[in-house]
Amino acid sequence: MKILFLNGPNLNLLGKRQPEIYGSLTLSEIEDKVRARSAQLAVEIDFHQSNSEGELVDLIHHAKGSFDVIVLNAAAYTHTSIALRDAIAAVGIPTIEIHLSNIHAREEFRHQSMIAGVCRGQIAGFGAQSYLLGLEAAVNING
Amino acid sequence: MKILFLNGPNLNLLGKRQPEIYGSLTLSEIEDKVRARSAQLAVEIDFHQSNSEGELVDLIHHAKGSFDVIVLNAAAYTHTSIALRDAIAAVGIPTIEIHLSNIHAREEFRHQSMIAGVCRGQIAGFGAQSYLLGLEAAVNING
Amino acid sequence: MKILFLNGPNLNLLGKRQPEIYGSLTLSEIEDKVRARSAQLAVEIDFHQSNSEGELVDLIHHAKGSFDVIVLNAAAYTHTSIALRDAIAAVGIPTIEIHLSNIHAREEFRHQSMIAGVCRGQIAGFGAQSYLLGLEAAVNING
Amino acid sequence: MKILFLNGPNLNLLGKRQPEIYGSLTLSEIEDKVRARSAQLAVEIDFHQSNSEGELVDLIHHAKGSFDVIVLNAAAYTHTSIALRDAIAAVGIPTIEIHLSNIHAREEFRHQSMIAGVCRGQIAGFGAQSYLLGLEAAVNING
Amino acid sequence: MKILFLNGPNLNLLGKRQPEIYGSLTLSEIEDKVRARSAQLAVEIDFHQSNSEGELVDLIHHAKGSFDVIVLNAAAYTHTSIALRDAIAAVGIPTIEIHLSNIHAREEFRHQSMIAGVCRGQIAGFGAQSYLLGLEAAVNING
Amino acid sequence: MKILFLNGPNLNLLGKRQPEIYGSLTLSEIEDKVRARSAQLAVEIDFHQSNSEGELVDLIHHAKGSFDVIVLNAAAYTHTSIALRDAIAAVGIPTIEIHLSNIHAREEFRHQSMIAGVCRGQIAGFGAQSYLLGLEAAVNING
Amino acid sequence: MKILFLNGPNLNLLGKRQPEIYGSLTLSEIEDKVRARSAQLAVEIDFHQSNSEGELVDLIHHAKGSFDVIVLNAAAYTHTSIALRDAIAAVGIPTIEIHLSNIHAREEFRHQSMIAGVCRGQIAGFGAQSYLLGLEAAVNING
Amino acid sequence: MKILFLNGPNLNLLGKRQPEIYGSLTLSEIEDKVRARSAQLAVEIDFHQSNSEGELVDLIHHAKGSFDVIVLNAAAYTHTSIALRDAIAAVGIPTIEIHLSNIHAREEFRHQSMIAGVCRGQIAGFGAQSYLLGLEAAVNING
Amino acid sequence: MKILFLNGPNLNLLGKRQPEIYGSLTLSEIEDKVRARSAQLAVEIDFHQSNSEGELVDLIHHAKGSFDVIVLNAAAYTHTSIALRDAIAAVGIPTIEIHLSNIHAREEFRHQSMIAGVCRGQIAGFGAQSYLLGLEAAVNING
Amino acid sequence: MKILFLNGPNLNLLGKRQPEIYGSLTLSEIEDKVRARSAQLAVEIDFHQSNSEGELVDLIHHAKGSFDVIVLNAAAYTHTSIALRDAIAAVGIPTIEIHLSNIHAREEFRHQSMIAGVCRGQIAGFGAQSYLLGLEAAVNING
Amino acid sequence: MKILFLNGPNLNLLGKRQPEIYGSLTLSEIEDKVRARSAQLAVEIDFHQSNSEGELVDLIHHAKGSFDVIVLNAAAYTHTSIALRDAIAAVGIPTIEIHLSNIHAREEFRHQSMIAGVCRGQIAGFGAQSYLLGLEAAVNING
Amino acid sequence: MKILFLNGPNLNLLGKRQPEIYGSLTLSEIEDKVRARSAQLAVEIDFHQSNSEGELVDLIHHAKGSFDVIVLNAAAYTHTSIALRDAIAAVGIPTIEIHLSNIHAREEFRHQSMIAGVCRGQIAGFGAQSYLLGLEAAVNING
Repeated sequence: MKILFLNGPNLNLLGKRQPEIYGSLTLSEIEDKVRARSAQLAVEIDFHQSNSEGELVDLIHHAKGSFDVIVLNAAAYTHTSIALRDAIAAVGIPTIEIHLSNIHAREEFRHQSMIAGVCRGQIAGFGAQSYLLGLEAAVNING
Repeated sequence: MKILFLNGPNLNLLGKRQPEIYGSLTLSEIEDKVRARSAQLAVEIDFHQSNSEGELVDLIHHAKGSFDVIVLNAAAYTHTSIALRDAIAAVGIPTIEIHLSNIHAREEFRHQSMIAGVCRGQIAGFGAQSYLLGLEAAVNING
Repeated sequence: MKILFLNGPNLNLLGKRQPEIYGSLTLSEIEDKVRARSAQLAVEIDFHQSNSEGELVDLIHHAKGSFDVIVLNAAAYTHTSIALRDAIAAVGIPTIEIHLSNIHAREEFRHQSMIAGVCRGQIAGFGAQSYLLGLEAAVNING
Repeated sequence: MKILFLNGPNLNLLGKRQPEIYGSLTLSEIEDKVRARSAQLAVEIDFHQSNSEGELVDLIHHAKGSFDVIVLNAAAYTHTSIALRDAIAAVGIPTIEIHLSNIHAREEFRHQSMIAGVCRGQIAGFGAQSYLLGLEAAVNING
Repeated sequence: MKILFLNGPNLNLLGKRQPEIYGSLTLSEIEDKVRARSAQLAVEIDFHQSNSEGELVDLIHHAKGSFDVIVLNAAAYTHTSIALRDAIAAVGIPTIEIHLSNIHAREEFRHQSMIAGVCRGQIAGFGAQSYLLGLEAAVNING
Repeated sequence: MKILFLNGPNLNLLGKRQPEIYGSLTLSEIEDKVRARSAQLAVEIDFHQSNSEGELVDLIHHAKGSFDVIVLNAAAYTHTSIALRDAIAAVGIPTIEIHLSNIHAREEFRHQSMIAGVCRGQIAGFGAQSYLLGLEAAVNING
Repeated sequence: MKILFLNGPNLNLLGKRQPEIYGSLTLSEIEDKVRARSAQLAVEIDFHQSNSEGELVDLIHHAKGSFDVIVLNAAAYTHTSIALRDAIAAVGIPTIEIHLSNIHAREEFRHQSMIAGVCRGQIAGFGAQSYLLGLEAAVNING
Repeated sequence: MKILFLNGPNLNLLGKRQPEIYGSLTLSEIEDKVRARSAQLAVEIDFHQSNSEGELVDLIHHAKGSFDVIVLNAAAYTHTSIALRDAIAAVGIPTIEIHLSNIHAREEFRHQSMIAGVCRGQIAGFGAQSYLLGLEAAVNING
Repeated sequence: MKILFLNGPNLNLLGKRQPEIYGSLTLSEIEDKVRARSAQLAVEIDFHQSNSEGELVDLIHHAKGSFDVIVLNAAAYTHTSIALRDAIAAVGIPTIEIHLSNIHAREEFRHQSMIAGVCRGQIAGFGAQSYLLGLEAAVNING
Repeated sequence: MKILFLNGPNLNLLGKRQPEIYGSLTLSEIEDKVRARSAQLAVEIDFHQSNSEGELVDLIHHAKGSFDVIVLNAAAYTHTSIALRDAIAAVGIPTIEIHLSNIHAREEFRHQSMIAGVCRGQIAGFGAQSYLLGLEAAVNING
Repeated sequence: MKILFLNGPNLNLLGKRQPEIYGSLTLSEIEDKVRARSAQLAVEIDFHQSNSEGELVDLIHHAKGSFDVIVLNAAAYTHTSIALRDAIAAVGIPTIEIHLSNIHAREEFRHQSMIAGVCRGQIAGFGAQSYLLGLEAAVNING
Repeated sequence: MKILFLNGPNLNLLGKRQPEIYGSLTLSEIEDKVRARSAQLAVEIDFHQSNSEGELVDLIHHAKGSFDVIVLNAAAYTHTSIALRDAIAAVGIPTIEIHLSNIHAREEFRHQSMIAGVCRGQIAGFGAQSYLLGLEAAVNING
């Protein structure tokens, strides 16, 4: 099983600013945790970040044929991007939506997810732990 | 660590109807899975279901002093109950919101959660697996 | 054929207050009329009332396996209860929504029915006669 | 007692198309059923259909002095016609709103009835049976 | 004169949590204050709390014939319960709506009261003092 | 100067029903008053009524080249007819919108006029007098 | 008969700016026309303008006992002032709402009138002629 | 292949008024262009216009069995007519929605099409050319 | 302790009109009652009324340094005045919002209070009694 | 060049309360800064404050003929006053809207400006500096 | 004449997934068809696709001076991109909006086009044929 | 002090198109003016433009540690980009929002700024002058 972890805009700054919302780990530290746990689970993962909506669409396209599940933290694009939604629907790879913060407990404009409609499920609010839960969910996606 | 799993209205019928939405396991079979996994994790759990909003409020109240985390599948009351929201805020026990189905991919009226604002995080759409992910999240709630 | 008549909150006060909206018959007098007519039609009926949303959900659950049709006057819960909606969908018994008053001609908040989406049809505005029409509709539900 | 059955736009095509929504009887077959039942009940009926909003307004006007009750399936005009609403209010004949399908379980724009506010009651979702229930309600309109 | 004080969901936890919103007195201490003052005013009171919407409806029904005024802190149900509204309208006892906190200065969803339309008046924001003001208002309800 | 008075649906029933809203004069008596006053003012008038939106569109079309001003009581179509709006814009004849009742003081759905945007002005709420004021306004339309 | 013409904010600038919207007559020239016509009709008038909402409320109060009808061009306050609405309701003098421009054909925020609900009727869009039509309507206010 | 071109309200005035919006060709000149092109394409066409919603419904009904495609410029009724929508759904003939002007670039109320939901596609904004594109689309409807 | 009673627009007409809404006491009679009760409570009061929003803002400003609590019946300005809200926030004197009628049971536009967000609490619906309850609340404002 | 600085409600209290929102300078200290800078720029200024909407309208009217630019901090009236909007449009003097706080980052009801539509531009969020930037913008209004 | 065909996000995946919505041709096969037809029409075309909003903006900018018409299938960006709208308005090249599917018959969020307001017209719902109709429309853009 | 001027989509076309909205200076000419003025003020500036949302996010990230203030004209992305909002919040550099045109006086969809909530202030409507005012505001950001 191969799982693609895809990270949207501003997640490259994780751990450095607003730790009260997003936690104090850097994205690279989170990647390490995910890699460690995926090794235990004997699944292969890839881990990318991009600030560009178009690039994220490209990365989803390229996942086709190479990955079995996508774990997607679309960050700000979660709430506005129909392009990401269409990309997920187009490649047809089971996709799990994750968020560091509990988006439903924050500003009104973060309550709506444009991609939820084409994702298997959503995990939000557990900080770095959201990634590990997403990994767990991905591994069990067919059971 | 003691974790209370609380289940809202109609979840007692799980596994018998609409398996395409809610899966084919009964609530009791899900409880078994949760108990098995919590044994591995060496945490104690309790597991209740009620169709009554008031009873669910009572159960949350009684959790105070006895449980460290609540994993709550409030089902239909998720979208309408301010009473549950206030109960969670009142007892101050960290609470994790879970759903069998991906509520954000269903009817518009299921997109809004009245309790999300006072929960740590939300896990939705992974069927019975949502409970195990909820357990995992509960165990790591302080880390 | 067995038909369950289920009555929601405040209907136990029928005939005593606000007869200009709800008519002057008590719920028990309406039950008598329904029983008389069902005897003529050679169908068995049961007749319950509860002020509790959870109890109404329970009653719908218990109907499974025992009743062929539910005739439901959910009263105030009509407009707010997703739990009742889910209960009806879960048991899969054909359900007929009835109302004493014409809810569409009253306050705006009574125009919306949360349960209509899972009911076969709706009869509203004919006072006690709504129950007899509901019985008639129930008897002919499959033809 | 004389009862006018009035049918709005597209009902002349009944039974030929979209039977999954509207049933497989033609309007003329429904009329036969209504006539048979009204003969049993010893009431006189008239039965008309028009695709024109203005003509339906005219037919309501002409009912004045000749009919005791109107049973109205305004079809598409239900949701948009203030002219029909004003006509019903103007002639002052008790009017019963009927629908073949359960309009409250269909598209959002079919949930609102512009005429409900001036009708005695509404019967929706029972196919051809809605007409017989409407007849029954009409006969008992004053009791 | 007999006055019923009715308290809705979560008010049994008063004084223990969120004192910055609801004050530091327990419900029982508030009851003592109300009893003391009602003794001075020579009126009889009863004082109940329930977390169940249906039970609150029952309590309002039972008030009929026994109480002259209801002072109701419906708490969370204030904003969602049409059943309580209908119960108040059904029993016809003058009812005074009270709130510990100033609901109009809190979250948007607490600004709307479903019961205000059938209550004589509303007192909100004075903590335990809201109960004494409600008592005062009750005693003077007819003057 | 030639002025066309055009009357929409249900106005043929004027004076017979709901006089508390629309006054006690028949449309024909209003026409007499308008004719009497227009004779004094030495202007020619025509006076029509139709219950059909399409016919009203036709009448507006035919006015082109024959009439200098239209005084239009579109009644129920005021609030829903884009066709009438387009007809008025298409013929380019100055049009005055009149109403017997004060539509802005009635139901919410009567507050919006679809034709106001292409009319010179609006006169509403003066009963039969609205027609005479409309005539006065028409005669002075150019200054 | 005594009629009070009351003019709201910015009407003192009439004739000097934006004549394409409001016409080229000054308020004083309009007053002259109104006085000339009221002399013919043998009615007494008074004519005031104020830019202050509170002063307009005062002027309406003072009208009580002295005037039979108020003709009110509330200008900008039309759309925002509940105080003017309450003042009109409080004094109980029949009031006619007038506007120079056709407010229903302008910006969305000018379509709503806060005072229409307590006025007899509305005349809008005829420039200075709106005042003369308002006078005509006032003189005939009682039949 | 037989194609029905159906034209809604006010299109009979084309070419005479508002050419800046609708172009300078009359409907008859457009018909000539359509006939010329359809001759080249060896398809038969019919071409009708009506200002009446009911008549347009009738014409759609009559198309059944005689026409393979409908090209419909419903004009003003596009935005308000559920009756036309239902007629198209009822006859089941593939229907192409056309507009002379770009309705999405005009007033807000022209952005919504009530019939789009049951049409194959929409062509808007190309003036008379919209008809030729509609013809082209009709001829290729199955390929 | 010094308490300022401040009254908004139209309250000077109290007792003379619409007693079914506002009661039959004049503002001066209410003032007498308040003065009598405040004498018993040994607090000093001042009592003002103004129809002008700006003047009310001025009065609130002047209260600074002289008064300990403001009891404010802002009447119509309650629903529209951000200026009053800002004034209350600016002077920082604890303010109690009162209303004669139960604003939450009246027209929709009276349900919203622009000033509630900066007031301690709200008392509405008890007629003149609202003032005495406001006085009581003011005296106990600090505990 | 002559520039009028106009200040709306509550700005007379500047510097004394809520300095975290509005800064710690008094309005008079801000005026001094503006006067100092305008002296450097060799432009004449006038500086007024009023809590009354009507008075602000008057001040705008009086500016006509005397001032080349208005710099307007309408404070609370920004969000509600159509009268100010109409006054600015009526006098035709280029107007610059300024705010001490960043109104777009505060409560929802402060995001909308009723006057922006007739102003040249808006400067918000820079405290006393907003006045100096407004002066700068005014001086360069034509270049 | 030179025409630029510009394709937005996910259109590179055409023909491979969701053919029930978007058809079974690849974008390259569609390009071939467009090239074939444009050769017949003796017009030059260019054909690009990008998943990046910014790149699409760039491509529109570069079209200036090189192309006479743009045929734009903005896909998901249609509904969200003000940047594309501004780009089209900025370069001033006549632009035709096309869509493979009938966006008005799909999810609510696809009904709104942010670019329609600056496009000549819209063609939607004809699959690959939409491109050929767009070409046809482009060639006749000035006639 | 180092200030970053960041320019969003389509601003590279400034001066060439729609000068009535955006002025006739090119972006490069504006940059020259800003550089000239910043030299006088002895502050260092950088000046960038990009049509890509992701690139703008990158540029904001890179500003961290190098710049003291950002002056941001996000153009179209102002109204839709949560990614830019999050980037500004993440880097924590004081940011000033500027616009050439008065966005609050244009189309409704330009009235909302998604970034205002995390910016210090906003300057809009002064053309190229907005940049110089932004520079002025930046230099004084801490005073």
